[in-house]
Amino acid sequence: MSERLPVTDKVPFGGDYNPEQWPVPVWNQDYQLFDLARIDTVTLGVFDWALTQPAPDVYDFSLLDRIVERATTEGRRICLATGTAAHPPWLARRHPEVTRVDFEGRRHRYGQRHNSCPSSPVFRRLSTELARRVAARYAANPSIVAWHVGNEYGGTCYCELCAAGFRDWLRRRYGSLDALNAAWYTTFWSHTFTDWDQIEPPSALTEHWRGPEHTAFQGITLDYLRFSSDAMLANFLDEKAAIRESSPDVPVTTNFMGMYRPIDYHRWAPHLDFASWDNYPPDDSSPSWMALSHDLMRGLKDGQPFWLMEQTPSHTACRDVNPLKRPGVMRLWSWQAVAHGADAVLFFQLRASRGASEKYHGAVIGHAGRADTRVFREVAQLGAEFDRLGAATLGARTPARVALLFDWDSWWALEISDGPSRLVRYQQVVLAYHRALWDAGVDVDVVAVTADLSRYDVVVAPALHMLKGDLPGRLAEVTARGGSVVATFLSGRVDENDNAFLMDVPGPLGELMGVRVDEWDARGPEFVNPVLLRAGTDQVEVASRLVFELVIPQGAEVVGTYQADFYAGTPAVTRNRAGDGDAWYVAAGLDQPGVSWVMRQVLDRHHLTGPYADVPDLETAVRVAPDGVRLRFLLNHRAEPVEVTACAGGVDLLTGDRVEGGQPVRLDPRGVMVVREDG
Amino acid sequence: MSERLPVTDKVPFGGDYNPEQWPVPVWNQDYQLFDLARIDTVTLGVFDWALTQPAPDVYDFSLLDRIVERATTEGRRICLATGTAAHPPWLARRHPEVTRVDFEGRRHRYGQRHNSCPSSPVFRRLSTELARRVAARYAANPSIVAWHVGNEYGGTCYCELCAAGFRDWLRRRYGSLDALNAAWYTTFWSHTFTDWDQIEPPSALTEHWRGPEHTAFQGITLDYLRFSSDAMLANFLDEKAAIRESSPDVPVTTNFMGMYRPIDYHRWAPHLDFASWDNYPPDDSSPSWMALSHDLMRGLKDGQPFWLMEQTPSHTACRDVNPLKRPGVMRLWSWQAVAHGADAVLFFQLRASRGASEKYHGAVIGHAGRADTRVFREVAQLGAEFDRLGAATLGARTPARVALLFDWDSWWALEISDGPSRLVRYQQVVLAYHRALWDAGVDVDVVAVTADLSRYDVVVAPALHMLKGDLPGRLAEVTARGGSVVATFLSGRVDENDNAFLMDVPGPLGELMGVRVDEWDARGPEFVNPVLLRAGTDQVEVASRLVFELVIPQGAEVVGTYQADFYAGTPAVTRNRAGDGDAWYVAAGLDQPGVSWVMRQVLDRHHLTGPYADVPDLETAVRVAPDGVRLRFLLNHRAEPVEVTACAGGVDLLTGDRVEGGQPVRLDPRGVMVVREDG
Amino acid sequence: MSERLPVTDKVPFGGDYNPEQWPVPVWNQDYQLFDLARIDTVTLGVFDWALTQPAPDVYDFSLLDRIVERATTEGRRICLATGTAAHPPWLARRHPEVTRVDFEGRRHRYGQRHNSCPSSPVFRRLSTELARRVAARYAANPSIVAWHVGNEYGGTCYCELCAAGFRDWLRRRYGSLDALNAAWYTTFWSHTFTDWDQIEPPSALTEHWRGPEHTAFQGITLDYLRFSSDAMLANFLDEKAAIRESSPDVPVTTNFMGMYRPIDYHRWAPHLDFASWDNYPPDDSSPSWMALSHDLMRGLKDGQPFWLMEQTPSHTACRDVNPLKRPGVMRLWSWQAVAHGADAVLFFQLRASRGASEKYHGAVIGHAGRADTRVFREVAQLGAEFDRLGAATLGARTPARVALLFDWDSWWALEISDGPSRLVRYQQVVLAYHRALWDAGVDVDVVAVTADLSRYDVVVAPALHMLKGDLPGRLAEVTARGGSVVATFLSGRVDENDNAFLMDVPGPLGELMGVRVDEWDARGPEFVNPVLLRAGTDQVEVASRLVFELVIPQGAEVVGTYQADFYAGTPAVTRNRAGDGDAWYVAAGLDQPGVSWVMRQVLDRHHLTGPYADVPDLETAVRVAPDGVRLRFLLNHRAEPVEVTACAGGVDLLTGDRVEGGQPVRLDPRGVMVVREDG
Repeated sequence: MSERLPVTDKVPFGGDYNPEQWPVPVWNQDYQLFDLARIDTVTLGVFDWALTQPAPDVYDFSLLDRIVERATTEGRRICLATGTAAHPPWLARRHPEVTRVDFEGRRHRYGQRHNSCPSSPVFRRLSTELARRVAARYAANPSIVAWHVGNEYGGTCYCELCAAGFRDWLRRRYGSLDALNAAWYTTFWSHTFTDWDQIEPPSALTEHWRGPEHTAFQGITLDYLRFSSDAMLANFLDEKAAIRESSPDVPVTTNFMGMYRPIDYHRWAPHLDFASWDNYPPDDSSPSWMALSHDLMRGLKDGQPFWLMEQTPSHTACRDVNPLKRPGVMRLWSWQAVAHGADAVLFFQLRASRGASEKYHGAVIGHAGRADTRVFREVAQLGAEFDRLGAATLGARTPARVALLFDWDSWWALEISDGPSRLVRYQQVVLAYHRALWDAGVDVDVVAVTADLSRYDVVVAPALHMLKGDLPGRLAEVTARGGSVVATFLSGRVDENDNAFLMDVPGPLGELMGVRVDEWDARGPEFVNPVLLRAGTDQVEVASRLVFELVIPQGAEVVGTYQADFYAGTPAVTRNRAGDGDAWYVAAGLDQPGVSWVMRQVLDRHHLTGPYADVPDLETAVRVAPDGVRLRFLLNHRAEPVEVTACAGGVDLLTGDRVEGGQPVRLDPRGVMVVREDG
Repeated sequence: MSERLPVTDKVPFGGDYNPEQWPVPVWNQDYQLFDLARIDTVTLGVFDWALTQPAPDVYDFSLLDRIVERATTEGRRICLATGTAAHPPWLARRHPEVTRVDFEGRRHRYGQRHNSCPSSPVFRRLSTELARRVAARYAANPSIVAWHVGNEYGGTCYCELCAAGFRDWLRRRYGSLDALNAAWYTTFWSHTFTDWDQIEPPSALTEHWRGPEHTAFQGITLDYLRFSSDAMLANFLDEKAAIRESSPDVPVTTNFMGMYRPIDYHRWAPHLDFASWDNYPPDDSSPSWMALSHDLMRGLKDGQPFWLMEQTPSHTACRDVNPLKRPGVMRLWSWQAVAHGADAVLFFQLRASRGASEKYHGAVIGHAGRADTRVFREVAQLGAEFDRLGAATLGARTPARVALLFDWDSWWALEISDGPSRLVRYQQVVLAYHRALWDAGVDVDVVAVTADLSRYDVVVAPALHMLKGDLPGRLAEVTARGGSVVATFLSGRVDENDNAFLMDVPGPLGELMGVRVDEWDARGPEFVNPVLLRAGTDQVEVASRLVFELVIPQGAEVVGTYQADFYAGTPAVTRNRAGDGDAWYVAAGLDQPGVSWVMRQVLDRHHLTGPYADVPDLETAVRVAPDGVRLRFLLNHRAEPVEVTACAGGVDLLTGDRVEGGQPVRLDPRGVMVVREDG
Repeated sequence: MSERLPVTDKVPFGGDYNPEQWPVPVWNQDYQLFDLARIDTVTLGVFDWALTQPAPDVYDFSLLDRIVERATTEGRRICLATGTAAHPPWLARRHPEVTRVDFEGRRHRYGQRHNSCPSSPVFRRLSTELARRVAARYAANPSIVAWHVGNEYGGTCYCELCAAGFRDWLRRRYGSLDALNAAWYTTFWSHTFTDWDQIEPPSALTEHWRGPEHTAFQGITLDYLRFSSDAMLANFLDEKAAIRESSPDVPVTTNFMGMYRPIDYHRWAPHLDFASWDNYPPDDSSPSWMALSHDLMRGLKDGQPFWLMEQTPSHTACRDVNPLKRPGVMRLWSWQAVAHGADAVLFFQLRASRGASEKYHGAVIGHAGRADTRVFREVAQLGAEFDRLGAATLGARTPARVALLFDWDSWWALEISDGPSRLVRYQQVVLAYHRALWDAGVDVDVVAVTADLSRYDVVVAPALHMLKGDLPGRLAEVTARGGSVVATFLSGRVDENDNAFLMDVPGPLGELMGVRVDEWDARGPEFVNPVLLRAGTDQVEVASRLVFELVIPQGAEVVGTYQADFYAGTPAVTRNRAGDGDAWYVAAGLDQPGVSWVMRQVLDRHHLTGPYADVPDLETAVRVAPDGVRLRFLLNHRAEPVEVTACAGGVDLLTGDRVEGGQPVRLDPRGVMVVREDG
């Protein structure tokens, strides 16, 4: 696994910048404003293909030269893009096969962005060549601290070229049609394939009904998801290799999108030098959603810090409703990113476009070019804070003892499954368990199922529908050495090919969990089955919804029981003593209080609950700098101030003020502290 | 009309079985479990085309031979499928025209099931040939009690082959373009066809907007519905004829789907030897929905018993939410099927698939292969009951004196109509009237509009939008001999071609009903117009919704009046003395209490109301065995016990206990009694 | 601008009539009934293409001759259609390119109506030829008072012919690709076009996602909307020119559809001799919606009276729910049309079709051919009223001193914009401001942004997203001479090419309004920010929703302030003293009471508030006849009577009764008065 972070002496601060859209006088104004806001880093050239290659045989870097030169002269760090995220009109006109065919089987024509068929030879050849030329031209410029390949890879193509690519991919995966037929269970519904050419991409015209999640054959759909992720990875690798021809050392990344279903970032991550991502949370009450996303992005490269490549300073444009970030929110969320491992804080965008679909997307500099807007002022204040912070957080790691398993295969398998319930969404289940940990103030690594689990006391596996490889054994090792494992309903159902395990549910997890699931009920969201949870004298009734597995304990102790329906009194939550540890099984869709109760039991057992677990919306996170210094972040997500007792002495790096352990500290509404704890 | 039931000495019990998906050791386990559950009947080979014809010129029955041989050796009855319900991949690859073109005009490629164009010559030739070979190979096996052609016929194709077939069908129907232009009323919107080739299938690309129910020309859409039903019937007839070449006597069926809109089962029924259907009710509070469906299926072949070909032992998989059948429900619903005329009770499926889209569909045997699950235990208990029952119910008929008219043409015409209201759904109206009869505990035949009505005291015609042939006269005969006829709003509007009758609404029913409808109002579901119903001193106010016809009596007596709006005080329900009988007209969308009140008036007049009409959710049904013995079924759909007074003496065939007329009998929650009444 | 109204001596009364669908005995019945109802005008031949040109080389006017002759003989005025609104089947079969390609890229085949590609040369040639022949044949008939071209032009085509047409249109508009690239801001997302042929119609296959309103490039989508409107205008002009070859004087129109988004009626209007439109309001509580639509239609030709070409006498058919017009409503709404400038009142349709999709559409004569229906009686009563009225209203003008600006470009730009809120709908904003004026009983001209504003005291510009040409200056002139201008949130954002103004929001309106908008918030509909409005001692709290602009006054006085959120206390409504007048800026999505409060302030300042402004649902409107006589219409939209004080003396033309100024007058429920005020 390649690991290489851009070399900087402070948190890079800035963002996407498109001077090619503007005349030079505007550039002058921009750099004056950048100075005011302490913007030291610009991402350049993300959509420059039409500019740098205006015709099949013409490359023209004259304008990009001037843009890079100006940034260099102005002393900014540059994150330089290869510019291949949208192909130019002439390419689609000349090579119609470069556009995608959609799920409905329609060949698209020129338009939008992220519009190239990943299997198109001409796209692969020309995108690689462009990356090669960009890198060759600018590799010697020391202002360039990172290469930015493509942009927000995603989407799917269903064309004939992809069909051929899929068949090749399948040949490599399965070796023989017999193996493929077995994996896809094709005896069902007369699907036995007798020639590779009979295989079609699974789409609205073949196996699907009602949309991309409803398929007659989970096996082919799952493999097409894997193939599509791999096909775009090949595009990334094409460009990375071309960059490396002239730039052996500058780190290469592409901007990810957090919990983005179409791309298995765990399969991509080894090939990036460092991870980066674009943080556009679904709404303005998303701190735990962002915390999970940051943890997932940090987990991609084994805890290495990542870059926050994009966030809006104010509001988005592409949504039905685009609310403003309230005063203080942009700063708070920027610090949250750092708290969870970000080593850069960048915006989309530095100056607002005049036209097209993002002209109303928030920007550091608006259409009037003013410095006296609320948004600009807040950006400039944050820029000053990062200046003050210097290098303190760079390279710092999160000392988590809790792991949460995140698995694209399970996500896909669960959501393309027919039965038991389309209402169970993988993200929602994962969010609930992560939220419980976040509320409890514990640092969490969100990791792949292949991650090394030996360093964790607690491993949480929500909705781990698919069980692959040696994971059951590695989970058993966690409990063997005294750790706790938590699994939930709809886990351990299928193997790597989405075929059901021919044993009791939860399959290979059954022995560790000490349960068997005899059957399962699913109901609409209006139906609630109360669950009574008990631990010693602690007793609470919570709600469960959507899925209710009926458990017959095989050694496990009953912790929670259903309170209604014909299975009233039967187990909903169990704990199995395994080795020196505990294996918890949550058989029902508990509400957040239920999930939080379970997770608190687990954390308390390992003394991992954070100091402010009972202070709502006060987030804490710890990073340990390369020199061993502990940095404790306190983030007040409330619009009211909060006062708590400092858990350790140290210095708040944002103010320079001293904090004494055991003494009260006060955070403003949406306030932040970064305490360098006494060594 | 062909009528031939499989010969059995008890109710066949078992279901779909797919050993081709499993290695032989699993077969061994299966038959042990079948023995435990008294499973005596297996449906084999429903999706075996890819197995039995693995290549264009290769037929290979070796595995099917072993499967049939094993079932035979194990002494099971076999319902043997022709296996043509899903074509194999090689066929679609070699003959792309075998796949369907959908409503959006998109040619599908290989995938799913029920995927063949009904007009494709190659599909017709090869499916026929496969049926021929299957029948020839196994016809001599006496274990085979029935042939199962295709599976759940349905869907629609809009390809060029179907377009050509449609034009041929139209030529046969209309003879000339003049007749067609008149029938479709093509002067409207300049649609006069001057060449048969100008006619296109009505789709999203031609006459339709917003979907299959919104058409510019009802005539062409209606005819395409008829054509599509006929085209698939031709597929069935192809295979049936091929089977008959070597198997002259074993009954042939295909599994229907109850109230399934795309296929006019009344046009199909004469061609089946016996009817069979798959019972997947919409939710777990559907006993009256199922009762109607059973009655409809029984009515297809003039009261001949049918087979329940499929039901889930526990839960479905294809729905958004797939709830469990509660304990006792599977047994209760199985007995309900028998009560309404089923002579077989079969499950989909005996063993759960490992992979693909039905792996989570309920099965008698789950992935762990256990006998000690709740579901298996309940299946085995039911198997034992059917063993005990023996031949008592076989061939028994329902002695109904009430007919409810069900008409696919009216269903189609009503729901593709522009105006008065898209919110009126044919099934909902029919369900409400059947529900009233079901609640009243009266046996009902659900029959085609062409059925012999001379044996009924009461004929109910809900939402009979289209009036065809001599029906008005035959309804008048019902009243002439003292019977009652009930018709509703939106009846008698159009002729066979969906052209409005050029007379007062309700058209040819007007004279019988003694009313004319001057105009009609339609409102959203939030709008309620109360209706005051009066009979003697009995007076009740109910709600009406959606459609409100404004009636001017032409001799009819007013039974109910609107209570609001500008038509307050005008008639909403009328009764016309006609002959010695009554003709009721319900001009408004009454709620269930309103419909039930009307139907109770009608039933009471003929002394047809059942003994437990006032005991909610206690269903009764009567069957009369070929030897004249009356079997009274009591089905308690509640989760609580119920105690009633026995209306006649007899013996409960499930327990052997004696029941005394006039004495109390108690039914357990979801309990069942089958009382052989004293002769 | 051509201006020519049909010459009549009274309000033409009648409607669409299709005797080609019926045998001659029905014609006889029709004319008897027309006599009863005083129907003097028939619109003929709207969908007659298949009849008049049954084959490529055959024209056959024999039936149309008889139809026209009969109408002439019967002394009816004729509005004669060219019949090109639906092409015949043979044309689509012979020239498949005559059908349209839809937004999804699907070539349609024969079906429906309004189905011709506007760019198709064969359609253009044949439709023109048909219009030429129709005009040549019947031009000499003096009964023909108007030519009716096509029908309800609309829809969009995305075929290759349209693509070519679009490129030509763009060449004419921009001259060069450089100008086009600048206008569309193609540097964004690498869209620089280097050849005209690279430009594709913006569709689901190119720039759009989620549908027609979601585009990656507003510029191309906006231009395709303009092009499509122009392409159909060319079709209209083709036919008009052909008519003019033989009929130089008879006025030509086509029936518009009020606020119909796809067609920019302001660009069409100069080419029609008179405007006409089809009034199908969205529901039965739409009097203010209709008032706005009438005012918009009247404004198309600078206040010239228009024809009400279609309305239903009773109910529609094409909607999910088609409610009846209550008794009196059809009459009331007919008079409302006249009050707002209609010089004709016509129905769709005179006799109900027997078949196809409009068979349940309301008609003067129903399927039974009766005169004794409620609907026929009301039509006949209205016919008698128009007979009595005579020529009194013909040519009368509305003396409005208030203008409301309506702009298709702003409508399009606002609704295809990404951000700030998809929930803001142009029509809704316009409706709210017009509703406030309507409630206040003031006559309003709804005009294009290019209209002469010098005659108005008040100009209201709701959601004027796009600012074009010299409008800012002309608005400033309104205030300079003491008038009032009202602008709202989301105004003044973009120039003619949808590029943001590079200045403070609201762009070129900022100086007049005396404000700058620093930023804007958008929230879901559940979020309400109260706004406190104050004028002197008048103070009221209203609600605002959806969009909240944060205003920094630059000289304007604060009239209303937000009451919640971080911007509580900041301005939501301002008034700037400009010249001798006022410039109001409403920065938030006020609810109706808020909008009405603001507008009443404005109207009161100019003494324009009507006499019955505080009587809910009592509409007033004034027309001034060519001879200077003032006609005051009073329309009681309530189901209860209302009594008010007459504001002037005169004679009610409907009853002949005298009205005395200052004395009470009483209107029946849904009652109407047309007072010829004393001179």
